[in-house]
Amino acid sequence: MNYNFSDKIAGMKPSAIREIFKSLADPSIISFAAGNPSPLSFPTEAIEKIAGEILAEQAVAALQYSVTEGYGPLREDVKARLRDKFGIDAAGDETIITAGGQQGIELACKVLCNEGDAVICEEPTFIGALNAFRSNGAKPIGVPLRDSGIDPEALDRALREHPEAKMIYLIPTFHNPAGITSTLENRKAVLKVARAHGVPIFEDNPYGELRFSGEDVDTIKKLDGDEGGVIYCSTFSKILSAGMRVGYVTAPAPIISKMVIAKQVEDVHTNIFFQILCHRFIDEYDLDAHIAGIRKLYRDKCGLMLRSLEENLAPDVPFTRPDGGLFIWCTLPDRFDGAEFVRDALKRGVAVVPGATFCCDEGAKSNSFRLNYSTPSDEDIVKGVKILGELTREK
Amino acid sequence: MNYNFSDKIAGMKPSAIREIFKSLADPSIISFAAGNPSPLSFPTEAIEKIAGEILAEQAVAALQYSVTEGYGPLREDVKARLRDKFGIDAAGDETIITAGGQQGIELACKVLCNEGDAVICEEPTFIGALNAFRSNGAKPIGVPLRDSGIDPEALDRALREHPEAKMIYLIPTFHNPAGITSTLENRKAVLKVARAHGVPIFEDNPYGELRFSGEDVDTIKKLDGDEGGVIYCSTFSKILSAGMRVGYVTAPAPIISKMVIAKQVEDVHTNIFFQILCHRFIDEYDLDAHIAGIRKLYRDKCGLMLRSLEENLAPDVPFTRPDGGLFIWCTLPDRFDGAEFVRDALKRGVAVVPGATFCCDEGAKSNSFRLNYSTPSDEDIVKGVKILGELTREK
Repeated sequence: MNYNFSDKIAGMKPSAIREIFKSLADPSIISFAAGNPSPLSFPTEAIEKIAGEILAEQAVAALQYSVTEGYGPLREDVKARLRDKFGIDAAGDETIITAGGQQGIELACKVLCNEGDAVICEEPTFIGALNAFRSNGAKPIGVPLRDSGIDPEALDRALREHPEAKMIYLIPTFHNPAGITSTLENRKAVLKVARAHGVPIFEDNPYGELRFSGEDVDTIKKLDGDEGGVIYCSTFSKILSAGMRVGYVTAPAPIISKMVIAKQVEDVHTNIFFQILCHRFIDEYDLDAHIAGIRKLYRDKCGLMLRSLEENLAPDVPFTRPDGGLFIWCTLPDRFDGAEFVRDALKRGVAVVPGATFCCDEGAKSNSFRLNYSTPSDEDIVKGVKILGELTREK
Repeated sequence: MNYNFSDKIAGMKPSAIREIFKSLADPSIISFAAGNPSPLSFPTEAIEKIAGEILAEQAVAALQYSVTEGYGPLREDVKARLRDKFGIDAAGDETIITAGGQQGIELACKVLCNEGDAVICEEPTFIGALNAFRSNGAKPIGVPLRDSGIDPEALDRALREHPEAKMIYLIPTFHNPAGITSTLENRKAVLKVARAHGVPIFEDNPYGELRFSGEDVDTIKKLDGDEGGVIYCSTFSKILSAGMRVGYVTAPAPIISKMVIAKQVEDVHTNIFFQILCHRFIDEYDLDAHIAGIRKLYRDKCGLMLRSLEENLAPDVPFTRPDGGLFIWCTLPDRFDGAEFVRDALKRGVAVVPGATFCCDEGAKSNSFRLNYSTPSDEDIVKGVKILGELTREK
């Protein structure tokens, strides 16, 4: 039989990132290409203990169908933590538990965008978000990301040029892939522009708890107060476990109620066992102390990678200096071809993600690449960066 | 801020079934409205033991990100079981692990249908499938379900009238809501029509393992052989645990590869812990013996409900006699208004699902209602059916 696929899916290719991941099956490759949290960030002993308790004390609740919006006590935990740690407490908001932050992005796009609509985003941006937009037939429109965030005037222009834009997707804190945190002034200016156009901002904040240097910057969600202009998304993937797939979205109630309808037909609900487990961890253990340990781990690993980059890269290869999160972004000067550099690095046994992967235009060229420091060992960080450094000095 | 929702989601209302579920918070209500497996069907002790072993032996693999297509050993288990128990073994097929069968339905629609396309289905049919189609902007077109299955000629007419149909969605075995199993002859005829039009069949078989009387009928997937015309979907929800959200789709490789792309942006992957758990249960325990226990349980419960219906319903109220699955379908004569009957039943403390819920046209009227026997206690089955019987004899 011949298969005719929907236009939105037919146009999607397996991403370059997948091709790189294939080569990672080779254990001799040093990988800076992952987006994984360190396995050391999983509180395995506590999870083992709680899992046993759940199955001994409330097995039926943990194994039976549950409600789409999520486990009530966990939704309350999220609300309390957003209020206490992030100053987020809008009267008209509700929370939905999602299958990781990824589902939050996809559902928001689905409820806000018709096929042919646009989503404005930073360029570069998270490949999973770009593909979520594409899979709903929505077109990502990039606004270049600078050190302080996207230019509010460029955002304003993009919104004027694209009246079909239904959402502004941003990762203001410890940006993936760029490792940048936008400034408070930038966030205020961006919010002002979004409000002037009446387009909601989707603030993706999966790494928000992982600051290891510098001072917290207010989230756009906090700055928005009770205005209802920001959809806020985060996840337990980077602080408890990525594989359990538990994230959440907090947004104005009308948006959440539509997301509940859309989620119900995607998976009925997020696996309830791990929702209960997240709640019990928050309730019975010290989440802050656990996160402090992850922050220290990433501070050390990021510091090591930054020192190695300073020592090894050619002096005209700039890279970002993240205050948290998982990623560093390097940009090669014009004498390099970015795609060729990434291929050469892989030949010498080091995997990085080419910058083009994170562009809105799938045929784009980029001379940047993304480095991850949370997954590789310290030894591999030193060894791998040395190889990258040699490559930058050969031209 | 004013929110503009996508056309496909804006048109979706919270289903009648949700409204009924709200009233179920009242413990004095006898509910025949659920679609839940019996909690007695969960192998809780084994799950507790395996969960402990996974976290002791392979915690990192169970808590870290994993691959979108699903855990390799579980995909192999599915393949082996489909081959050994159902005679399904097409050379060109692949399997994807999904977040329950629900995600399988939704992904298939997403990869095959543009907005405005149609999906042909039995009428009545599973509300979760109808809403999955609607959420993708696809229009469900119903073909009336009879005792032997849908009329192949009516299917042929529907496909002629709707050249925009991209999928035929069927639940041939222990149908939800109708409790019907279509005949072998019907399946062959339906497959022939689908092939003639070049439209793939989505065979949803969540209850296929739950036969408690009669003889197995070949799945349409088996009848299709290597022709690649059938997408087959099932789940562990009804045999191990519904709350863990683990299901699967087996279909021609080109379809699965598109579903992998579409799933990656919905949730990256299904929670890996429970994929490993399913694999270890299949590998180390006796799944067939476990299922035999569930079959006996449902045989007893269904038998009790059928006897109660015989004894209590007015003689002109027909109902189906399922050979498996979870549901019985009752149809009231014309002197009743179906919606009013359901409301009256609820007032007297018995919840059933009105037939209109399962219709393609959201404004449809139906004089049928769905009964579930897997969840209520034996005492409640007797008590609740008695109340329904009284209502059928009052007009």
